[in-house]
Amino acid sequence: MVQLLATRPEDRLANLTRKKDRRGDRALLDDVFDRCLVATVSTVLADEPWAVPTLVVRDNNRLLLHGSTGAGALGHAAGGAKVTVSAFILDALVIAERQFEHSANYRSAVVRGTCCVVGSDEIATALDCFTDAIVPGRSQECPPHTAKELAQTVLLELPITDDNWLAKQRSGPPSSPSAQWTGLVPVTQAYLPPDSSSTQPLPASVTRFIETHNQTSA
Amino acid sequence: MVQLLATRPEDRLANLTRKKDRRGDRALLDDVFDRCLVATVSTVLADEPWAVPTLVVRDNNRLLLHGSTGAGALGHAAGGAKVTVSAFILDALVIAERQFEHSANYRSAVVRGTCCVVGSDEIATALDCFTDAIVPGRSQECPPHTAKELAQTVLLELPITDDNWLAKQRSGPPSSPSAQWTGLVPVTQAYLPPDSSSTQPLPASVTRFIETHNQTSA
Repeated sequence: MVQLLATRPEDRLANLTRKKDRRGDRALLDDVFDRCLVATVSTVLADEPWAVPTLVVRDNNRLLLHGSTGAGALGHAAGGAKVTVSAFILDALVIAERQFEHSANYRSAVVRGTCCVVGSDEIATALDCFTDAIVPGRSQECPPHTAKELAQTVLLELPITDDNWLAKQRSGPPSSPSAQWTGLVPVTQAYLPPDSSSTQPLPASVTRFIETHNQTSA
Repeated sequence: MVQLLATRPEDRLANLTRKKDRRGDRALLDDVFDRCLVATVSTVLADEPWAVPTLVVRDNNRLLLHGSTGAGALGHAAGGAKVTVSAFILDALVIAERQFEHSANYRSAVVRGTCCVVGSDEIATALDCFTDAIVPGRSQECPPHTAKELAQTVLLELPITDDNWLAKQRSGPPSSPSAQWTGLVPVTQAYLPPDSSSTQPLPASVTRFIETHNQTSA
């Protein structure tokens, strides 16, 4: 994503050295995957690129992927094909004086490797982990998994090792000063009030989820 | 992305036939790319999948891609490699009674093919189009492009033809009725007040952009 219209090497170098905002640090990687919920799984099928947006959560040093594995990218990943799992957060539009210097502030992360299918001995725990990574505490509010449900569920695991990932960030104002108005238009993801026809009380996990995300998403 | 935890074929069939919410229609494709700003460009490099989040806009029957083409997925795309450009909008978390039936509402779109580099005869117009697709009217507020800026800019074009794309959607409440609270937690992307140290007036394009997006993003 990097620059909106500029691709000047000196801009990129300036970002690296002056703002220290293209970090490769693990905390950034974790932050991106923990906030995103949805990532894009890319794979190669008959020499062609395939990609599918997929619910992805991070569980310590692994990503857990869930989706329909019947066909396409995710099914291919389940069969052992190499994957690239990428996620991003758009933080702001960067409005500069010149079109060429317009840009975007973002955080992005990529993990590459080969997935394993989570085995039957671990699937119940991994499913709880998956659910709770999205809505913390939700698994405890739900009835236990049935054997049939577990047999029908496919979760993929992608390890995060020392050297199979990359995390990047652009932050800060436009690169060049200007006599005109220049600045940022910040973007955020917000969760709205729940939508339901139920008259039952909202689960505690859902209430907490909305409160927490709307406090920290800006 | 489809189901959060369920992969039951009968659920997918039910969605198709009952809710008509997995459409393949062109209006959905356009809507996803017009709202997203950022898409993921996937390509194949030395038999491995590569992916990079990239600013992408739609201009009628083509996508315009912009980013650093020095290396990685986008540089490879500029060299004529096959690409898959995918984008998604997360609309809601679907909270069901059973973990297995949790899901996500989303809109997603994919265009596949081979990019062309926008030529020097069209680059100035295409850059204006790119900028205005993100912040309508902004190009007219900026000084004209210089020859040097145009020479340093790379824009890629991916045609949208009759048969090289796919658009999908899941919408609506959880599949199964429940005596417990079940429902949706809607997600939206919101633009916050501009952040700038400038004392100059905000450009009209930026004011309009924020007003328009915050009205229509829910």
